[in-house]
Amino acid sequence: MLDVTLANPRADRVKQVRALSGRSARSRHGLFLVEGPQGVREAVRWAPGRIRDVYLTAAAAGRYPEIVAAVDDAVGRGAPGETAAGGGSSGGTSNLRSHVATPEVLEAMSPDAQGVLAVLRVETPSLEQAVRGARLVAVLANVRDPGNAGTVIRAADAAGADVVVLAGESVDLHNPKTVRSTAGSLFHLPVVTGVPLSDVVAGVRGEGCQVLAADGAGDLDLDDLQDLPARPAEDRSADLSRPTAWIFGNEAWGLPADDRALADAVVRVPIRGRAESLNLATAATVCLYASSRAQRRGGAAGPSR
Amino acid sequence: MLDVTLANPRADRVKQVRALSGRSARSRHGLFLVEGPQGVREAVRWAPGRIRDVYLTAAAAGRYPEIVAAVDDAVGRGAPGETAAGGGSSGGTSNLRSHVATPEVLEAMSPDAQGVLAVLRVETPSLEQAVRGARLVAVLANVRDPGNAGTVIRAADAAGADVVVLAGESVDLHNPKTVRSTAGSLFHLPVVTGVPLSDVVAGVRGEGCQVLAADGAGDLDLDDLQDLPARPAEDRSADLSRPTAWIFGNEAWGLPADDRALADAVVRVPIRGRAESLNLATAATVCLYASSRAQRRGGAAGPSR
Repeated sequence: MLDVTLANPRADRVKQVRALSGRSARSRHGLFLVEGPQGVREAVRWAPGRIRDVYLTAAAAGRYPEIVAAVDDAVGRGAPGETAAGGGSSGGTSNLRSHVATPEVLEAMSPDAQGVLAVLRVETPSLEQAVRGARLVAVLANVRDPGNAGTVIRAADAAGADVVVLAGESVDLHNPKTVRSTAGSLFHLPVVTGVPLSDVVAGVRGEGCQVLAADGAGDLDLDDLQDLPARPAEDRSADLSRPTAWIFGNEAWGLPADDRALADAVVRVPIRGRAESLNLATAATVCLYASSRAQRRGGAAGPSR
Repeated sequence: MLDVTLANPRADRVKQVRALSGRSARSRHGLFLVEGPQGVREAVRWAPGRIRDVYLTAAAAGRYPEIVAAVDDAVGRGAPGETAAGGGSSGGTSNLRSHVATPEVLEAMSPDAQGVLAVLRVETPSLEQAVRGARLVAVLANVRDPGNAGTVIRAADAAGADVVVLAGESVDLHNPKTVRSTAGSLFHLPVVTGVPLSDVVAGVRGEGCQVLAADGAGDLDLDDLQDLPARPAEDRSADLSRPTAWIFGNEAWGLPADDRALADAVVRVPIRGRAESLNLATAATVCLYASSRAQRRGGAAGPSR
């Protein structure tokens, strides 16, 4: 599967890969980086058709045989979703190419690669497509910190959400730090970007989702909502067993009143101690797990996937 | 309340403060830094007796009048817990001193101070003292990432935990990044450090706590445990309404078998999607909130504080 070893850390190819850590090169080329074995393993497994190149050191190729095998397998299968142009490709009918590189080349491409790195095509699903039939949606409104965004994507995946939306002026999904923080979850569920929050709300409502905003000053207490079976039948606001889209606000200023007003209800995670608040990712995880559990216990419908 | 303005960013005092971002200076002097308005506000409110100096720019003094007022108040009251030595102090009977400094001086002391910074005495509570009567304890075993440790302390505070323990070879609690990530929660509940995990387990058992280890491969599913009232009466293992100490492992390698064996039960947060795991802080938050909620609903005892 492997080409000749890349050995020149000053080669144009190395500079081009390295440049993808910046937003302008990413938008210009429609490509982004996945750094490290966990991310690359998940990319090769779940999104082989979007991978253009995989770079590994010889040591990493030995340490992660499952990545090498999966790349070989994807090349052999012609990387589903890929056009089988194959001009100059290293094997099979795929555009996917893998390359052995010296540690110096890998280090020059990215200091965070731990010996393995992939270059993927940016492909963002449409909102309509992604939310079709969704029962649990996480919406981040104007989230700016790459690590927070990635951690919420990972937690949404773990909680069994169907889709994540980075709405409004949120951080770039393909920022290397965001990609790393998702720990591969970026390839497990659709992540929609660049849609105004009001469009997102309209889209998920059209699919029958209630819309809950998470905010420390919310009227409803998440713990009370989890006791819903014990609540009087007339009080069915914010029934966690229903299909739900959660909106989470910016890490510093939360959700402005205009954004909260888009929701059916505003829910607070109860603060029992003296903390002013939870951080964004931990609050989002508690909300998503509460929904996931209520949907599984309460609903007639089975797991969403 | 304010001394003359400190204007020389190369002064010895500035170097001494800056050095506290390193572990060796912290242990040598028994002092640590709290950077930024939120942390300093909480320190002044909850631990005035441990503060030695507060440094602010004139702009920050105007922007955060509540910090200036709280410092004045603490100085006036003689900063409870402080010996009233007062030699050379700026007023009252306290050792607490506040100083106006130029932006250059603040920046030289710490690039993360946002105009306000405090130097505090390190004071770590004993395990025995801290766990007395505790109903919810978070134990971090060999956690290495400063941000993770701080985020768990903040989440434990929010969930109403009584104490956090950084057991074994965990990150230094007074690392500036840990302190920042706690968002002041460091001053809201006792955080015990430097105790071997086995001693922690013995200590909390002595107070009547069950010990639950959180691990992705655990036998028990956290969601099932939350349905306890619906479980048969003979199955009272891991009753979340009981006083509980949770053990959370290292962010990369989790809890080794020896550590898991110290617990009464090993509990997994269910993974519904394709994620391999949650990150440490989000998993810990879900566990602590599940306990907190079960204790409030199920137990005869009221809130723990």
